[in-house]
Amino acid sequence: MNYNQIFDAAISRLHAEGRYRVFIDILRNKGAYPNARCFAGHNGPKPITVWCSNDYLAMGQHPKVIAAMEEALHDVGAGSGGTRNIGGNTHYHIQLEEELADLHGKEGALLFTSGYVSNDATLSTLAKVLPGCVIFSDALNHASMIAGIRNSGAEKKVFRHNDVEHLEQLLAETDPSVPKLIAFESVYSMDGDIAPIHEICDLAEKYNALTYIDEVHAVGMYGPRGGGITDRDEAAHRIDIIEGTLGKAFGVMGGYIAADKRIIDVIRSYAPGFIFTTSLSPVLVAGVLASVRHLKQSSVEREGQQAAAAMLKSLMREAGLPVMNSTTHIVPLMVGDPVKAKAISDILLAEYGVYVQPINFPTVPRGTERLRFTPGPQHTEEMMVELTKALVEIWERMELRLAA
Amino acid sequence: MNYNQIFDAAISRLHAEGRYRVFIDILRNKGAYPNARCFAGHNGPKPITVWCSNDYLAMGQHPKVIAAMEEALHDVGAGSGGTRNIGGNTHYHIQLEEELADLHGKEGALLFTSGYVSNDATLSTLAKVLPGCVIFSDALNHASMIAGIRNSGAEKKVFRHNDVEHLEQLLAETDPSVPKLIAFESVYSMDGDIAPIHEICDLAEKYNALTYIDEVHAVGMYGPRGGGITDRDEAAHRIDIIEGTLGKAFGVMGGYIAADKRIIDVIRSYAPGFIFTTSLSPVLVAGVLASVRHLKQSSVEREGQQAAAAMLKSLMREAGLPVMNSTTHIVPLMVGDPVKAKAISDILLAEYGVYVQPINFPTVPRGTERLRFTPGPQHTEEMMVELTKALVEIWERMELRLAA
Repeated sequence: MNYNQIFDAAISRLHAEGRYRVFIDILRNKGAYPNARCFAGHNGPKPITVWCSNDYLAMGQHPKVIAAMEEALHDVGAGSGGTRNIGGNTHYHIQLEEELADLHGKEGALLFTSGYVSNDATLSTLAKVLPGCVIFSDALNHASMIAGIRNSGAEKKVFRHNDVEHLEQLLAETDPSVPKLIAFESVYSMDGDIAPIHEICDLAEKYNALTYIDEVHAVGMYGPRGGGITDRDEAAHRIDIIEGTLGKAFGVMGGYIAADKRIIDVIRSYAPGFIFTTSLSPVLVAGVLASVRHLKQSSVEREGQQAAAAMLKSLMREAGLPVMNSTTHIVPLMVGDPVKAKAISDILLAEYGVYVQPINFPTVPRGTERLRFTPGPQHTEEMMVELTKALVEIWERMELRLAA
Repeated sequence: MNYNQIFDAAISRLHAEGRYRVFIDILRNKGAYPNARCFAGHNGPKPITVWCSNDYLAMGQHPKVIAAMEEALHDVGAGSGGTRNIGGNTHYHIQLEEELADLHGKEGALLFTSGYVSNDATLSTLAKVLPGCVIFSDALNHASMIAGIRNSGAEKKVFRHNDVEHLEQLLAETDPSVPKLIAFESVYSMDGDIAPIHEICDLAEKYNALTYIDEVHAVGMYGPRGGGITDRDEAAHRIDIIEGTLGKAFGVMGGYIAADKRIIDVIRSYAPGFIFTTSLSPVLVAGVLASVRHLKQSSVEREGQQAAAAMLKSLMREAGLPVMNSTTHIVPLMVGDPVKAKAISDILLAEYGVYVQPINFPTVPRGTERLRFTPGPQHTEEMMVELTKALVEIWERMELRLAA
């Protein structure tokens, strides 16, 4: 038994596949987003432009958010000091849960330390509370949903991505008397496509299944109040549990679910991942409160993001770059090889001051490695033209294929 | 299939057992710890004294921590905007990992969004990387360690709490050729006792097992630099993986492991709970950096906490209150009944402005329900005398037993 040999072999496999990850060392410049400083190399911080942040609307730098966090920091201090049950339940937490419940038209909401934990804790607990539960899971569901489903121990049936016929087939062949849960996302973050929510809800009603939707790449960004795709498509009332994040469009950190009071109470009372963990810092919660309230009544950021995404897709397409068929704010560019995806990213950073991370397995399936751009309201037309030129130059240098 | 009936039944069970949890709604007053405001009832915020916070040393209100967080907030903004691999790796994260590695005398460290996630992600990933791994787990390990072990799918052998003879028996009967991991805590947070670390390490060496220690209730508080019990007992070099939290003595939020570079690289590269989640807000990380650096060179807080805990235990013992046999800063008072524990806590809050949460199942075994006090350097002798008087009065009112 040589432990070091086993660990070395595990790391060697990553190098051999070209997917060993190197984290890039940056600091963003508040008030100048998407500008940042990069600490790689040895000539001190170097200015870069960030193209792959999930702070989609730059709310993490919004004056209202910063002011709210500063106020909380000076009013109550840095951390909550405990779990929600033991000393760590602050007035901010309660207010934010009310605000999020209202955002989705639900009776209640529950905060978690992250979106990952929301999915893992809620899905694993739900299926344990419902004896014999079968979970129907979209094939492209996020790792945190897969973790929650696996950790529940429940039977899982995977339906082909966004394929309602396949979902119906699986529902129909399942014992009508057992509890059922359909788990899916609204916006799939690596492809940028959207689920057929109403059709899935039709099936849920027909087969008496609960519905669970992950809206982490949609909350804040879609719908008249930023309630996500279920807000835009007027489907929130048909979904039993809506899950979201506070760390992407809302710009801070944390996760949550919104549902009826009964479900919230069950998860609150039974989920170890909720019960046994220090609650979110009140400083973060105060910042999110300001962010959610702002985006409920302001659509400028959403419109700016949609315009930027449309422009970047159009520029890339015109230049013959292999931009994928996204219907959302996400702009993925297919490369199809982990080594090449990393090489393009390295050249962009070193020569053009452009930061976009290569997306490799296990985040996407092998053979579909890509670059994923997330333009926002702060990315200018000039930046996008420059970026497209740089990409074309690299594509030619590396002898990759451009469309005619 | 009536989902609501199942959910209602789950909640009814909690009420029937007297362990339905009601979260108390508070805000702490920065600069005046342990004072806080309580929003329960309808006469506006009411002043209370907090006796159950895990912000053990009040570092969450330390001027250095607040200043560092304010600076980061204005320099880079609220959130990190991404996972460590995709846009969310800031210079602060790298600096803090170096600082934590140094604290424990290890080559590397890795940040997680919480201590819960550190345990869950690390234990479940380690055991998956080591084929056939058997995990030896102390009977009183925290829920997050139990979750990680269960989620690993590895075989688990539970040894009686702090019982090295039982541990050896289990190790001896296990196939010498399979990977082994001993997982335990240094300070057990609900009893306040300490593990026999060197004896466990002796066994680990004898049977070629890896060692994993949870120091969440010890880091910052024990050892000349606050490296925990492994620092105090000069045992850090004998432990493979030290896990800690940033949300208790360090006063902010988050969790981490420290280990050799090889192990850090494996967890960093393979743990879904690390890879697929937005990284800690740089504001939090900056605050922790200040906190860890301060506690490395200041022992005033540690000494104040130890003195306060000794005084409170002594006052309670003299008054005949059933204070448990803790050898640490934790002061548990046995009640042995969930309904009575809650009633005492309710009276303390309503009549005395004292906030201490009742600790019920599943946090402690049924029949050992208790009140758990965590006096710190800011709790004065006067406060402790008042608290003891109040407890004696309630004990008599409720006809509970006092020692002669």
